[in-house]
Amino acid sequence: MNFDIPADLQKLRDDIGAFVRDSIIPLEKDKRWTSHGPTEDFRQELVGLARSRGLLAPHVPEAYGGRNLSHFGRAIAFEAAGYSMLGPIALHCAAPDEGNIHLLSEVATEAQKARWLAPLARGGIRSCFAMTEPMGAGSDPSLLNTMARKVDGGYRISGLKWLITGGQGASFAIIMAKMQGGDHDGKATMFLSDMDQPGISLQRQLDSMDSSFSGGHWVVSFYDLFVPDDSVLGAVGEGFRYAQVRLAPARLTHCMRWLGSAVRAQDIAREFANRRTAFGKPLADHEGVGFMLADNDMDIYTARLTIWHSCWVLDQGGRGNIESSRAKVICSEAIFRVADRCVQILGGLGLTEDTVVGRFFRDARAFRVYDGPSEVHRWSLARHVARGRA
Amino acid sequence: MNFDIPADLQKLRDDIGAFVRDSIIPLEKDKRWTSHGPTEDFRQELVGLARSRGLLAPHVPEAYGGRNLSHFGRAIAFEAAGYSMLGPIALHCAAPDEGNIHLLSEVATEAQKARWLAPLARGGIRSCFAMTEPMGAGSDPSLLNTMARKVDGGYRISGLKWLITGGQGASFAIIMAKMQGGDHDGKATMFLSDMDQPGISLQRQLDSMDSSFSGGHWVVSFYDLFVPDDSVLGAVGEGFRYAQVRLAPARLTHCMRWLGSAVRAQDIAREFANRRTAFGKPLADHEGVGFMLADNDMDIYTARLTIWHSCWVLDQGGRGNIESSRAKVICSEAIFRVADRCVQILGGLGLTEDTVVGRFFRDARAFRVYDGPSEVHRWSLARHVARGRA
Amino acid sequence: MNFDIPADLQKLRDDIGAFVRDSIIPLEKDKRWTSHGPTEDFRQELVGLARSRGLLAPHVPEAYGGRNLSHFGRAIAFEAAGYSMLGPIALHCAAPDEGNIHLLSEVATEAQKARWLAPLARGGIRSCFAMTEPMGAGSDPSLLNTMARKVDGGYRISGLKWLITGGQGASFAIIMAKMQGGDHDGKATMFLSDMDQPGISLQRQLDSMDSSFSGGHWVVSFYDLFVPDDSVLGAVGEGFRYAQVRLAPARLTHCMRWLGSAVRAQDIAREFANRRTAFGKPLADHEGVGFMLADNDMDIYTARLTIWHSCWVLDQGGRGNIESSRAKVICSEAIFRVADRCVQILGGLGLTEDTVVGRFFRDARAFRVYDGPSEVHRWSLARHVARGRA
Amino acid sequence: MNFDIPADLQKLRDDIGAFVRDSIIPLEKDKRWTSHGPTEDFRQELVGLARSRGLLAPHVPEAYGGRNLSHFGRAIAFEAAGYSMLGPIALHCAAPDEGNIHLLSEVATEAQKARWLAPLARGGIRSCFAMTEPMGAGSDPSLLNTMARKVDGGYRISGLKWLITGGQGASFAIIMAKMQGGDHDGKATMFLSDMDQPGISLQRQLDSMDSSFSGGHWVVSFYDLFVPDDSVLGAVGEGFRYAQVRLAPARLTHCMRWLGSAVRAQDIAREFANRRTAFGKPLADHEGVGFMLADNDMDIYTARLTIWHSCWVLDQGGRGNIESSRAKVICSEAIFRVADRCVQILGGLGLTEDTVVGRFFRDARAFRVYDGPSEVHRWSLARHVARGRA
Repeated sequence: MNFDIPADLQKLRDDIGAFVRDSIIPLEKDKRWTSHGPTEDFRQELVGLARSRGLLAPHVPEAYGGRNLSHFGRAIAFEAAGYSMLGPIALHCAAPDEGNIHLLSEVATEAQKARWLAPLARGGIRSCFAMTEPMGAGSDPSLLNTMARKVDGGYRISGLKWLITGGQGASFAIIMAKMQGGDHDGKATMFLSDMDQPGISLQRQLDSMDSSFSGGHWVVSFYDLFVPDDSVLGAVGEGFRYAQVRLAPARLTHCMRWLGSAVRAQDIAREFANRRTAFGKPLADHEGVGFMLADNDMDIYTARLTIWHSCWVLDQGGRGNIESSRAKVICSEAIFRVADRCVQILGGLGLTEDTVVGRFFRDARAFRVYDGPSEVHRWSLARHVARGRA
Repeated sequence: MNFDIPADLQKLRDDIGAFVRDSIIPLEKDKRWTSHGPTEDFRQELVGLARSRGLLAPHVPEAYGGRNLSHFGRAIAFEAAGYSMLGPIALHCAAPDEGNIHLLSEVATEAQKARWLAPLARGGIRSCFAMTEPMGAGSDPSLLNTMARKVDGGYRISGLKWLITGGQGASFAIIMAKMQGGDHDGKATMFLSDMDQPGISLQRQLDSMDSSFSGGHWVVSFYDLFVPDDSVLGAVGEGFRYAQVRLAPARLTHCMRWLGSAVRAQDIAREFANRRTAFGKPLADHEGVGFMLADNDMDIYTARLTIWHSCWVLDQGGRGNIESSRAKVICSEAIFRVADRCVQILGGLGLTEDTVVGRFFRDARAFRVYDGPSEVHRWSLARHVARGRA
Repeated sequence: MNFDIPADLQKLRDDIGAFVRDSIIPLEKDKRWTSHGPTEDFRQELVGLARSRGLLAPHVPEAYGGRNLSHFGRAIAFEAAGYSMLGPIALHCAAPDEGNIHLLSEVATEAQKARWLAPLARGGIRSCFAMTEPMGAGSDPSLLNTMARKVDGGYRISGLKWLITGGQGASFAIIMAKMQGGDHDGKATMFLSDMDQPGISLQRQLDSMDSSFSGGHWVVSFYDLFVPDDSVLGAVGEGFRYAQVRLAPARLTHCMRWLGSAVRAQDIAREFANRRTAFGKPLADHEGVGFMLADNDMDIYTARLTIWHSCWVLDQGGRGNIESSRAKVICSEAIFRVADRCVQILGGLGLTEDTVVGRFFRDARAFRVYDGPSEVHRWSLARHVARGRA
Repeated sequence: MNFDIPADLQKLRDDIGAFVRDSIIPLEKDKRWTSHGPTEDFRQELVGLARSRGLLAPHVPEAYGGRNLSHFGRAIAFEAAGYSMLGPIALHCAAPDEGNIHLLSEVATEAQKARWLAPLARGGIRSCFAMTEPMGAGSDPSLLNTMARKVDGGYRISGLKWLITGGQGASFAIIMAKMQGGDHDGKATMFLSDMDQPGISLQRQLDSMDSSFSGGHWVVSFYDLFVPDDSVLGAVGEGFRYAQVRLAPARLTHCMRWLGSAVRAQDIAREFANRRTAFGKPLADHEGVGFMLADNDMDIYTARLTIWHSCWVLDQGGRGNIESSRAKVICSEAIFRVADRCVQILGGLGLTEDTVVGRFFRDARAFRVYDGPSEVHRWSLARHVARGRA
């Protein structure tokens, strides 16, 4: 049992930290960081900066220019990147691309990898993951209403997807659909499709609480979309299993990135609390404020330990389902509390966008819903506990 | 002891309720409700609607067309208005005008009332309250850095104000400044000034969490602004006392309006929870969701009782300082919890602006800071309690 | 709408307050206040003190020497009595007798009243309410396993009751049993029986968290107990309805009494916080402690308003089911938080029985379970809310 | 970075686990486990059981028959022992002896070790740590009022100590006193003294919330106690430094032991929730209960990770002051929440001593005060955070 961080990861962490501080934070006031996330040209510029520093996409396989980081390695690197909400965009380790890269690495055929994974992994393009639907197929997959049926040479897909992150600007999509008829009737399958196909249309952009996802969130309709046979991702009927392959680590990487932003918010709040006075002394000398700083410290600390342990379980080959649910609840709630306290410490300033804390607060609020709300994971964990499995 | 609502107030509540439902809620999707609040023409339109229904400004003295409602009467009316965040705009009982009307009614000379209060009370113009400064003069008045000095026939005022709600579009301002020299050296005084004066400039608009205040929030600079002698509001050197005259009830009216919005959010969440299913049954049939609805109900209930009791103390002639601090903490925190739970119940939908819950959540977050953060009021209350006075 | 307390109730409150301070608090160190509540001779002594001051049982009908207080009157009187945990014992307004008196007043025949209610109401004897069973018939009445069957001239009752407060020392019991056979098969009925009957035996005394109930808590077995026909309380088959008649107000009176104890704990904590120093200043001057005092104040305040409003609904003739559940959750949780914070303020001292705060903390913990745990009432309230009825 | 537990520690954990289950839990109903902890003869019996299994005092140096466990080793062993609150008594790794053994190992002379440490480490005798005083010298050492002055051949000590755990039955005491006069005037020194000396008297036993400490808690007076020169523990004037040597790890071992009890409580609550039904299904199938089980799981998990990381810092040679404060707050509050939820899940049963959960709840409440209340550690942590050191 030890908590040593290997020297190479320490160096990577420090390099990313310096990069974020020197190159990314100064760009946070850029108007191209809109309420729907960074624009595509801004994203490209950020990616270019990371590429030039040799820090792009450290998680992707070496074949695509990455470092093939372990889960623990990602915990170190992504937290450092998250110190600016734009850091993961620059390093191309943000959702949904990061999770899609992971999924394609695990499941795609070589041809699919060459066509979709390779350019995606190198940061040249973006992708989206079309699973959630208006009636809630995110938390309860049985509600899936997008249908696929077998036709000559491929499949026809129809349905409406909702809250599709990065829908605009994505080059391709991974589409979750339910089989209609045939051997796998009623089972879910994942399909790959370029976005510039007849049958795919962006309906409207949602105005959402968060603002750090490239392309924002979209309602996307699929109407009689044709995909050829070789566009099935993995095996027909195995969609839900792959969703877990993607989601268990994807929840953790969300935790990592936002943890980095929590550290940032705490640094901003601390600096403010030391500098700003009220009633004759610095805010930090008021127990009411000091206790908030201390609680933030403890929340950051337990969130980090939770992430590290979950990563270790995954790196040991565990499926990590329990750990992933546990980490999702612990981290999203802890990170939100940190964000909330930092807003409170900053007072009026925290309510404005003069610092990034306000933005972070809104992202952190969304995190308690994204990738399964706390209630779904709490109940999942409750089932494991009741059966003596946790 | 009884909780009867007099028949005339019941009727007013019902009339406002019907007005909000029929005339205001359908306008909530109007693009003129921006992230900086309703535009001035939209505000005028809303005010016109209330005026045509005879519901405009029920709190103002009858001389100005109102009903001169008691504090309790306001509790009933403003909660009903707050059922839409645009309702208080329409009824012209929103901050900061509502508090300014109250202050002018209490302190202004007849000439000042004729010039500034009369048009304001009738909803034709807007006003702002220039107290808060970048270094925090909101919570700790000793930090006031805007200075006024006596000159021939009047005063010269210089300083920088921050987070000035409704700064743009306001016809006049109440300005808090510290006397420099003379008999009242170091003491605070309130001044009235039209906004279109040399020496007043809007520096920039703040991007803020909330979005229901007309004109948004501004940085406003005063540079060598001249105001004539008859522009002093009340007596020289009495600024802080008047601030309390304004703030004690103003905090309560904030509670009332946002309580109305909390009731609305709960209605939206309940309707969704009854309609939307997950894991085979409506969300409302899940204890995890049901408990949130129940907690909302209890928070709304205790917030309302707190407001009513505080109003009764004020209506009995009490200063209500303790009640005002207590109500501010209890209500702002309860209302925020309601908003937070409603977002969670709505899930992804709650993160978008497809309902008003997301907007309300951000307003409710701001409320925990505005008019004194929880920590300042908690400490104020703590002092009273420690001395056996609460 | 007003919060005036009529002069006669103010006087009663002050008289009870003086009585508790002068006559009861000095007896709190008496060894006869055991971990199973006051002994019977101590109880008799306390009752005698209240009787001699003309303060005994103000809630009972005037025919039995009481003042027939309204629910609101009880709120005033019982909170004052609760300022010492022994106060309600002295005034004979403690559970379960107080609730039994209420139930008998509402439902019993004149003969039953003469035999059981009259001596009980005058404080000469005690009673118990035998509803809860080992498998939990408290929260979920369908689990009732004590059976009654019709025999010649009466009924035979068998079953095991658990956590029967005041089982030892009670002169009679109200027994809830399920009918076996006959017209009312499966329905619950309440029976009255003296405790010194063959067929009733006290199995064992439970060691419980709380310590303010006379006689402690018992496991009581009923084996082939015979009760004559005229021992049915009210109508056969109506047991659950009567349980609600008893429990809705009984929950409120629990809230009242323990609220009084919360006020006491707060007074003790405040006095300590003003007197005791740490790190160079009184504890009360530390924000960390001051905030706890303020939070206590707010919890006490909202609990009191909740009780008053609920009483008003009952006094208006409402059934108060929603209010009773709401008040149970709000008050028991608020009162527990107060107790918990007072322990924390007192530090090591709060962990000992050198003050009454430790005892009160344990009683307050039990209150979150007694008369229906928070979860049961929260869910009951959730159902009302979901249906738009709250 | 890894979370592997070495095989020898796994075996030790399993051996202790089996011992506690097989030999200790069956004794939990023994009447000799009083509300003031186990009696001395019961303690001796428990120690004998552990000795016969070769599990006694695994933390003490090998010279005294132990295994000289690392801090991490203790985390594993003490959590396993804590699965019964009597387990640490049996293994002789309970407070205050465990901390005293640690302190003596670090600071005592060889002669002192031979006289006091050796018999203590072997479990034959008990000891006490006389630091806390009625005015609170526990949290704020500057309040120390017990005085020591130099006399011929030794020192004379006078003062009153309060909440001295294990005062009765202890063979010797470590006494913290402030030097009066001489070179070290005003500085604190630790002294060793047998308890059967003239000048030491047990004043009274405190009735305390917790019940797992051998000998209970006492008020102990020192009046003109003479201790010879060689009874100074370490150097004169260094008492506060040694207090930290003792307290930093002692806080952690408290966390470890009570974490074991939290695991036990969770097991009891889970078993009950699976077995007991309400409203037609097992309690565990109710989300309200399931969520509590899940929250317990997360609290136990983060507490354990916190302990492990803190141990690792200490095992690396760190002083661990920050970690110790952080762990004290995180673990005591998490463990209390677990205890509180388990009581709630068990309902009425949880309020009785029919399970150990009620006892554990009261111990867990005390833990939030012992060894420095949450507020003191939170503030200490706040200072570190504000200075950028955490």
